[in-house]
Amino acid sequence: MVSNPPNEFVAGNGLLSRRRLLGGVAGVAGAAMITPAFGNEPKQAMELWRQQSGLPASAYGDPARRLQREQLNLHPFGAAAGSSSTPLQHLNGTLTPNSLHFERHHSGIPDIDPAQHSLTVFGDVERALTFSYESLLRYPLVSRTWFLECSGNSFRNTLGQPADMTAGELNGLISCAEWTGIPLGVLLEECGLKPSATWLVAEGADAAGMNRSVPLSLAMDNALVALYQNGEPLRPAQGYPVRLLVPGCEGNISIKWLRSIKLTDEPAHTREETSKYTDLYRNGHAEQFSLRMEVKSVITSPSGKMTLPENGVYQVSGLAWSGGGGIRRVEVSADGGNSWAEADIQSEPGEFRPVRFRIPWQWSGQPAVLMSRATDTQGQVQPTRARALQGVAPGFSYHYNGMQSWQVDEQGRVRNVYV
Amino acid sequence: MVSNPPNEFVAGNGLLSRRRLLGGVAGVAGAAMITPAFGNEPKQAMELWRQQSGLPASAYGDPARRLQREQLNLHPFGAAAGSSSTPLQHLNGTLTPNSLHFERHHSGIPDIDPAQHSLTVFGDVERALTFSYESLLRYPLVSRTWFLECSGNSFRNTLGQPADMTAGELNGLISCAEWTGIPLGVLLEECGLKPSATWLVAEGADAAGMNRSVPLSLAMDNALVALYQNGEPLRPAQGYPVRLLVPGCEGNISIKWLRSIKLTDEPAHTREETSKYTDLYRNGHAEQFSLRMEVKSVITSPSGKMTLPENGVYQVSGLAWSGGGGIRRVEVSADGGNSWAEADIQSEPGEFRPVRFRIPWQWSGQPAVLMSRATDTQGQVQPTRARALQGVAPGFSYHYNGMQSWQVDEQGRVRNVYV
Repeated sequence: MVSNPPNEFVAGNGLLSRRRLLGGVAGVAGAAMITPAFGNEPKQAMELWRQQSGLPASAYGDPARRLQREQLNLHPFGAAAGSSSTPLQHLNGTLTPNSLHFERHHSGIPDIDPAQHSLTVFGDVERALTFSYESLLRYPLVSRTWFLECSGNSFRNTLGQPADMTAGELNGLISCAEWTGIPLGVLLEECGLKPSATWLVAEGADAAGMNRSVPLSLAMDNALVALYQNGEPLRPAQGYPVRLLVPGCEGNISIKWLRSIKLTDEPAHTREETSKYTDLYRNGHAEQFSLRMEVKSVITSPSGKMTLPENGVYQVSGLAWSGGGGIRRVEVSADGGNSWAEADIQSEPGEFRPVRFRIPWQWSGQPAVLMSRATDTQGQVQPTRARALQGVAPGFSYHYNGMQSWQVDEQGRVRNVYV
Repeated sequence: MVSNPPNEFVAGNGLLSRRRLLGGVAGVAGAAMITPAFGNEPKQAMELWRQQSGLPASAYGDPARRLQREQLNLHPFGAAAGSSSTPLQHLNGTLTPNSLHFERHHSGIPDIDPAQHSLTVFGDVERALTFSYESLLRYPLVSRTWFLECSGNSFRNTLGQPADMTAGELNGLISCAEWTGIPLGVLLEECGLKPSATWLVAEGADAAGMNRSVPLSLAMDNALVALYQNGEPLRPAQGYPVRLLVPGCEGNISIKWLRSIKLTDEPAHTREETSKYTDLYRNGHAEQFSLRMEVKSVITSPSGKMTLPENGVYQVSGLAWSGGGGIRRVEVSADGGNSWAEADIQSEPGEFRPVRFRIPWQWSGQPAVLMSRATDTQGQVQPTRARALQGVAPGFSYHYNGMQSWQVDEQGRVRNVYV
């Protein structure tokens, strides 16, 4: 029989050493999940799928089961102004399949003919130029794995009562992809920047004409004019044929269906940066152009609306990311923040790339509250919910990055709570 | 007007400095592709998609156009023994969307109920154990971005006459994904290896009962028992619910639908490592268990069956990878191998992760032959076709890694050639 080494607890309420394995037959795992192999060989059952050939290779493949995004159709005037969120609780690793990348549209998804679409760079430049899609494909490209997060992600946790929802429903306006595109600086160099150019105003070809102002210093750093996502051409919902991508910043400024970039000496103060996407405070102050997304993490398993089937060891697993760059450390608590232990980073690190963290946890069958707390490479630490909302005007919910707390009750049911 | 800096040629027949941009209006790009913006503003046209709302956010997203894999149904007894290949010529970056990952099945895709499936580790172990799918999900996971290549990839280029096919049709049995799974060593540790265990024999739950022997030293290094691909659960065609993944090695040993691992003191000499997947030489020698895939690259654009529309500057772009680890350098020739220039690596490097390379090239309208040559971090250099086939018995085509050559004729038509 499998020996069951003494558990090495590293924090309260069952958090185990990162090096702890599951524990085998006689261990903390349910005996029905891992069993001795009778006669030192696999079971002799001949399942149906071992008796007959399966389907042949196909031209386009399907998933094991059709995971779905939750659709948030919030606007009273029509579903075209809405969003759908990544089902974080069903995923692992760091990437998001393109079919499950979150969406946020202000006038729906335009059906663009790339031959009729172009990108014009104009304003404070030496020569205003219009680039066809074909011409953009001939520019030098770079490929970068970056998260994209909606400024309003997790807004439900800013409300008075905790919503009993899944991790994806609550926090799924964050996704990650390998983006391939032209460094924005290359296109601006083709046009020649005038010294007066200190801002750009990017505009999309959707019916909303979504437009946002971006400080040139931020855009020149590492922004892309993206053409491909996870290897394939951009999808219509993600800006096909061409979008802006400003890593680490609120998703709204990464203008989809990009049709123009105007160089200016000041921001345009568009609707989407005055009446929307501005942080309001209780003291009456408002902060515009707070574009960087802050350090954040969320446990995706166990998470909201799951039920743990039995006492035993589980991997607590989740994602952490920061607009400040990379992630230095993620800590996990199983006792509502009284004690913390450092989680393992299981994935490849990178700037603006989310990391997957995990730590084993022995659930005793008693109530527990699971939380995670990320620290980024700049030393910024994710705040508690109370701290994140401090001073913020009621009802304003952009850039919320407070810790997500999941309560596990005696029946193993997991739900969103405020601690 | 855009100034057109003198071209800096870095190798014969039009290869340009990696730092060369496209060149703007008066440059080498077609004048119709980049135009001055009239009146220093975007065109005033009101395309249909800017006049009305588009489709709302959805639960599951669709691509811009449905790219397809080529299906290679080679077996005279049925399509279930066949393959489909990644359309490399339509992709950029390094990842492959799961729907376009190559497939190679020997008895088709089994339709497995994960609740009925289990993995048994047995043979030369202290305790043979059977792991349910549920139990595997509770183990510590790691996430790694690795290529997977079929041992028979590019076999058509070993034949006597060059086939006029696309990059994907010829070389598309290579794909890349972020794989998330349990380090194999963790599961073996649970079972306790006996000193006699020096090989393992992995077997799948497909009707073929695909089984392969792997040296334990290789498997303990970094092999995974994979559960997720690019964030989502494995797809049926990729081994759902669980597969083996041995990075850098021929895809065939990364057994899909993994149902058992037997520890032994010698290889099993299964059908798939005796009558198949063995390298035969003209001198009568045969090499078994040559499992590592060697250093290789392929230009994906311009590539077979494309037609360049006009003289001008193009990005020569492609993928390079090696079972030896990472890629140190990729060189490109535009004159059939007479002169070479180093290409830019545009993507994030990593062990067993393909890189995307690119170099600008000015096509003069005269015939040209484009080739790429990769060098890996171990210093191994990709051979010419002649060198790669030296000594190999006619008709045997595993592990072919010779350089791919694309001829561009005066009409801009690109085709596969042997040089």
